[in-house]
Amino acid sequence: MNPPLSREACAARDAADPLAPLRAQFSLPPGVIYLDGNSLGVLPARAASRVQQVITEEWGRGLIRSWNDAGWIDLPRRVGDKIARLVGARPGEVVVADSTSVNLYKVLSAALRIAGSRTGPTPRRVVVSERSNFPTDLYIAESLVEQQGMRLELLDIDDIPARLREDVAVLMLTQVNYRTGRMADMADLSARAHAVGALAVWDLAHSAGAVPVDLNGAGADFAVGCGYKYLNGGPGAPAFCWVHARHVESFRQPLSGWMGHAAPFVFQPGYEPAPGIARYLCGTPPVLGIAALECGVDTVLAAEALGGMPALRAKSVELTELFIQLVRERLGASGLRPFGPSHAGQRGSQVSLAVPVDGSIDGYALMQALIERGVIGDYRAGDGSAAHPHLLRFGFTPLYLRYVDVFDAVQVLAELLESGAWREPRFARKAAVT
Amino acid sequence: MNPPLSREACAARDAADPLAPLRAQFSLPPGVIYLDGNSLGVLPARAASRVQQVITEEWGRGLIRSWNDAGWIDLPRRVGDKIARLVGARPGEVVVADSTSVNLYKVLSAALRIAGSRTGPTPRRVVVSERSNFPTDLYIAESLVEQQGMRLELLDIDDIPARLREDVAVLMLTQVNYRTGRMADMADLSARAHAVGALAVWDLAHSAGAVPVDLNGAGADFAVGCGYKYLNGGPGAPAFCWVHARHVESFRQPLSGWMGHAAPFVFQPGYEPAPGIARYLCGTPPVLGIAALECGVDTVLAAEALGGMPALRAKSVELTELFIQLVRERLGASGLRPFGPSHAGQRGSQVSLAVPVDGSIDGYALMQALIERGVIGDYRAGDGSAAHPHLLRFGFTPLYLRYVDVFDAVQVLAELLESGAWREPRFARKAAVT
Repeated sequence: MNPPLSREACAARDAADPLAPLRAQFSLPPGVIYLDGNSLGVLPARAASRVQQVITEEWGRGLIRSWNDAGWIDLPRRVGDKIARLVGARPGEVVVADSTSVNLYKVLSAALRIAGSRTGPTPRRVVVSERSNFPTDLYIAESLVEQQGMRLELLDIDDIPARLREDVAVLMLTQVNYRTGRMADMADLSARAHAVGALAVWDLAHSAGAVPVDLNGAGADFAVGCGYKYLNGGPGAPAFCWVHARHVESFRQPLSGWMGHAAPFVFQPGYEPAPGIARYLCGTPPVLGIAALECGVDTVLAAEALGGMPALRAKSVELTELFIQLVRERLGASGLRPFGPSHAGQRGSQVSLAVPVDGSIDGYALMQALIERGVIGDYRAGDGSAAHPHLLRFGFTPLYLRYVDVFDAVQVLAELLESGAWREPRFARKAAVT
Repeated sequence: MNPPLSREACAARDAADPLAPLRAQFSLPPGVIYLDGNSLGVLPARAASRVQQVITEEWGRGLIRSWNDAGWIDLPRRVGDKIARLVGARPGEVVVADSTSVNLYKVLSAALRIAGSRTGPTPRRVVVSERSNFPTDLYIAESLVEQQGMRLELLDIDDIPARLREDVAVLMLTQVNYRTGRMADMADLSARAHAVGALAVWDLAHSAGAVPVDLNGAGADFAVGCGYKYLNGGPGAPAFCWVHARHVESFRQPLSGWMGHAAPFVFQPGYEPAPGIARYLCGTPPVLGIAALECGVDTVLAAEALGGMPALRAKSVELTELFIQLVRERLGASGLRPFGPSHAGQRGSQVSLAVPVDGSIDGYALMQALIERGVIGDYRAGDGSAAHPHLLRFGFTPLYLRYVDVFDAVQVLAELLESGAWREPRFARKAAVT
């Protein structure tokens, strides 16, 4: 057994951390240890001045001319190309547009049409996904399967490989589960889907900027991702989508707005989809949002000179392992237990702690008390069972988190549990969520 | 015949204009007469500091807490309620979300389902629209009619009333035509649609903030609108949508993302649409974009104390009438002619000038030369025929335009035509748009 970890040992790891300089890219509030970058990334220091420049110079002075002069019209593709570098896509394969939900609607529509049109002994009428996939993905899938007379089947992740049979049109998964942090094997599951003639649609919400992703290498078919989590793009940042070259021109996605037209400024009736991924654009690009997102993406790309995503991943694994070790050493008696993959290779850049099923800890109140003390994570209710417990969720972003932050966060949590201060009534949930 | 208009007479009208103080709300570049607010509205002076506050304080310091503490989660409804005041909708009937194109997809889907399910002697399989409706509207309709086995019929606006028969599911129009500025009679056409059992879907892109709109009074069924034109919300600002109370809960629109769920933070599979217009939300709200849009909407609402939309409309009519009169007086010999409604009551807040069909004026080059001299309008190519000519398009925003601006703009245009300076090769289009 290892000796208990000390704060000094953590500080020594920070001093030796080659990624440590990346923290200076951010504007972090004093007194806060931010373990919620998996929900909303922190502010890149450059974003404020960049957005200000867009507003006062490009919009204020350039006005309509800035669509060309400031390159606004190219933003979806330009920032898409930057994101492509983080997810194993080629230049010209990714666009920034709309929200993750809207983009999922586009790509899942396309996937269902392509897979549904494949002939075989069995009609392909099923979309398979994970029961605990992020709800918006399931809601969008629900809408599309109803529209197309198909069916959505939700399974535990471990039961999915056996369910991939000839009646499956699409396997739709979020690569890293938002509750457990468990990371699915994109290459393996995509291959299994392909082996039965199905297509694989991936949501990278908790992967892009968090773990190495190789969409082309993994043979994925479609992907969407979120701009405001590990890409640090700001609240409600635009999302992105990717389509494999083998599919990109085989379908006209249903949200056929003018920006996806082959010649949007010719103003002709009659939709002709643009070549390539641009056909996945729809309305006018949200310039302020994309400008902020670009600053966020740049904070991740800044790691390229220091080893890139593999180096970020290595630190992320060390941070989550450190957190788990500290929780086991110091919180073991509390009943809080790490929930999710015990092997780092299956874990995204987050760790959830399950609240005891005996109800001895009110996870909601504990998280509120923790936030008040400057340690920001979030709370995700389950049904309270051992299989689907209430969770304290913590994201670990190697771009700006230090090893001492992990130590201090567990320290604050330990103190709270020891003092019972989280039991103060003001931390309790005000009203039931119904 | 009236005596020729003088600049002094225009200045006198400015001095007597009760709306003149509204101009101080904007940050206008020096030396520019901006006649393109129908394409991208100008910068409200408050927008830069407000967005800065959102970025540095709410995002930077508040981080994830700002979804509640700064009210981010309420932005779509709060700003929707402000827009509602401009379009004859009640509080709780409008949400800000996505783009105009995406919102049109939502409401047109709903309208087609509702109308298509109505029983009658003839199946309702037709969407009727205007041939020169803005292309993105037609592209979205094209996608939906194909999806639902229906048909899109495009007509000249004057032929539409006669086409409204029992096979029509939806009449879909942009209230003010983007090329001609012609304003359709929303109440009359909605009533004609209803008389044959069809529904009326309205795009307010060139109406909201530009002309008085009374959605409930006109009996419209669905509407969408744009945030970045007369609402001054900034480049690619989020759009809005409205659904009449009689329809709002009768259908679950297909873009069923988590923000339209009855309880988005319960994280349950199984979509249950929120009550009311909130079910027309989809993904996470674009906070920066909505914050800027709110500043823009506030610039229009500031007119409420000075007579509101009717007062803005009265000035808008005076501005367009003045422009037309000046064009007739001073440019008559050039061959440029006002194109669109001659009666102000049928005209939105814009005037287009048709380029002579004999090709004696290159409208594109003329507009570039005009822009270089600080008079910003835009150019919209047609097919060059008398019915569908190439257009110089000018928007007139009474919030910030002065009568002398109109005089000066025509003066610059007259000088350009007289000198022929627009013929310099650098103004010609570099490459054909194909």
